[in-house]
Amino acid sequence: MDCKPNASAEDSLIARYFGPLATHPGALGLGDDAAVLAPSGDDVVVTTDAIVEGVHFLSTDPADTVARKALRVNLSDLAAKGAAPAGFVLTLALRAADDAWLSPFARALGEDAAHFGCPLLGGDTVSTPGPLTISITALGHVPTGKMVRRNGAKPGDRVVVTGTIGDAALGLDILRGGAVAAALADDAATREMLVGRYRVPQPRNALAKTVLDHAGAAMDVSDGLAGDLAKLCAASGVSAVIDAPAIPLSQAAAGLLARGIVAIEAIVSGGDDYEILCTVPEAGFEAFAQAAEAAGVAISSIGTIIAGAAIPRFLDARGSEIALPRLSYSHF
Amino acid sequence: MDCKPNASAEDSLIARYFGPLATHPGALGLGDDAAVLAPSGDDVVVTTDAIVEGVHFLSTDPADTVARKALRVNLSDLAAKGAAPAGFVLTLALRAADDAWLSPFARALGEDAAHFGCPLLGGDTVSTPGPLTISITALGHVPTGKMVRRNGAKPGDRVVVTGTIGDAALGLDILRGGAVAAALADDAATREMLVGRYRVPQPRNALAKTVLDHAGAAMDVSDGLAGDLAKLCAASGVSAVIDAPAIPLSQAAAGLLARGIVAIEAIVSGGDDYEILCTVPEAGFEAFAQAAEAAGVAISSIGTIIAGAAIPRFLDARGSEIALPRLSYSHF
Repeated sequence: MDCKPNASAEDSLIARYFGPLATHPGALGLGDDAAVLAPSGDDVVVTTDAIVEGVHFLSTDPADTVARKALRVNLSDLAAKGAAPAGFVLTLALRAADDAWLSPFARALGEDAAHFGCPLLGGDTVSTPGPLTISITALGHVPTGKMVRRNGAKPGDRVVVTGTIGDAALGLDILRGGAVAAALADDAATREMLVGRYRVPQPRNALAKTVLDHAGAAMDVSDGLAGDLAKLCAASGVSAVIDAPAIPLSQAAAGLLARGIVAIEAIVSGGDDYEILCTVPEAGFEAFAQAAEAAGVAISSIGTIIAGAAIPRFLDARGSEIALPRLSYSHF
Repeated sequence: MDCKPNASAEDSLIARYFGPLATHPGALGLGDDAAVLAPSGDDVVVTTDAIVEGVHFLSTDPADTVARKALRVNLSDLAAKGAAPAGFVLTLALRAADDAWLSPFARALGEDAAHFGCPLLGGDTVSTPGPLTISITALGHVPTGKMVRRNGAKPGDRVVVTGTIGDAALGLDILRGGAVAAALADDAATREMLVGRYRVPQPRNALAKTVLDHAGAAMDVSDGLAGDLAKLCAASGVSAVIDAPAIPLSQAAAGLLARGIVAIEAIVSGGDDYEILCTVPEAGFEAFAQAAEAAGVAISSIGTIIAGAAIPRFLDARGSEIALPRLSYSHF
């Protein structure tokens, strides 16, 4: 873990860039083969998500935003499960040890780890001839037996989402030079906001305790609202009706929708939102909404869980069903 | 998690190949965003290791051996820390969902998970245009505060290794068509044994409890005995003297060494051994050796920890120091 002659280049790299992030005593300064977490009495929640250059982020994305995205997509899972972060391990597959990339990557990762209270516990750095790949496993805590699952939705529950939906997909379209980029050619500030939503998700960990206290089922929206809601409903053995005009949109997304640049279908199946989707029994909704406000997280009630096994329906302002040819992003 | 029309292809792939492996109740059938482990009262040990096609395994290695290697390199870390396996999460970066590869991969992974008592808890499957990459994070348990670290070696302790050293490096040489392949051209059985040692490590989890009870310091030998011993000594603030003829060799390795096909330097710096390297106080050595015998794991005492900060010395049969230009494998 230091630069003694017996330390390998890999160990030196880890020590130099990631040693300063090992603030948790159980990380053992990244100088051992494993990390150790003292028993908390709570359940340990474990989640893992990898991001691949060219698939989940672009080669042109800055190193600091790649670091934040890699950690935040995992923090978002912890938040949706009602779990408090405990720490994470990192596997970094790199083509080369490049200071111009590693230095801002490690700095941003450390800033986010501190901000979200999720310290680096350990990791592995390997060389690859292929695309940069960052795999993170995050650990969290929930009171025993209380992790919020996908399978607790009941007919009559409200369907709720945090934040706004669709911005990240619009940001990706801008980075790819699509129709959104052309439509916003004169509006750098809006382009930057949307690109920022793609590159740096805002995980709703501030809402984790509220989700734990009030949600029957929850997951984060990573592959698109329509597809992820379908998964939640399938796990719960229910269906849902969504009032599409109630889906929370940023001013930018609403403007693009009004101008006909994008369709609602693209917004609800776009993915990369990293908002929380959850169901809340009607009787608990007021308390949930108050707790969310106290936590500083915007929430919107967008529909209702119903009995049945049908794929959730999205209705427009006139009550007509919106056809969704593609529910969400799939890798294969 | 099933093949309903709302399940994505990725979810179908996970359900088909990996669902049957999710035998742990906390894996939730791989149907949620996270797994959950009930509190055990023990410390949780966390380790992560990735293997990359063309770097840690060859494109020509069979899928079943790749699966076993990916899990076993992590099991080896748990064993060396004295930890009992609790479970693992898997990140699989694939170019395509290919049944001819995924089917034996998943089957072998499931067999090893069952054999070593380390069930699949969750995972992420992503597409990559690059080399196949398998990243595993394994979790284990040790009594609170008892994880065996690298930093507990004391002058006078015995240096001990399990199994035999160097076979995997010789197996890799065979797969690359090197000098070992030529020397063993007429001996298919020996070639197969050595290649097997490269492709499928034999983690010494049966010795974990013995390591926990008796070892002052421990790590697994993954990057080469010489380099890993140097790391252990540096972490402990000590040095060591190793009696090279005492290093346990397979009959195959001993024969190649005697014939001058390979040098001892290559054997002690070759890597991929996945044996346990540990230090045992002299007073406890007899009890350690008896416990190892009871556990069915061969151990060899190969030298002594001494005071000082020098890189450990390897002495030949005449007591002369063996020059080691390269202590171990490094990725960068």
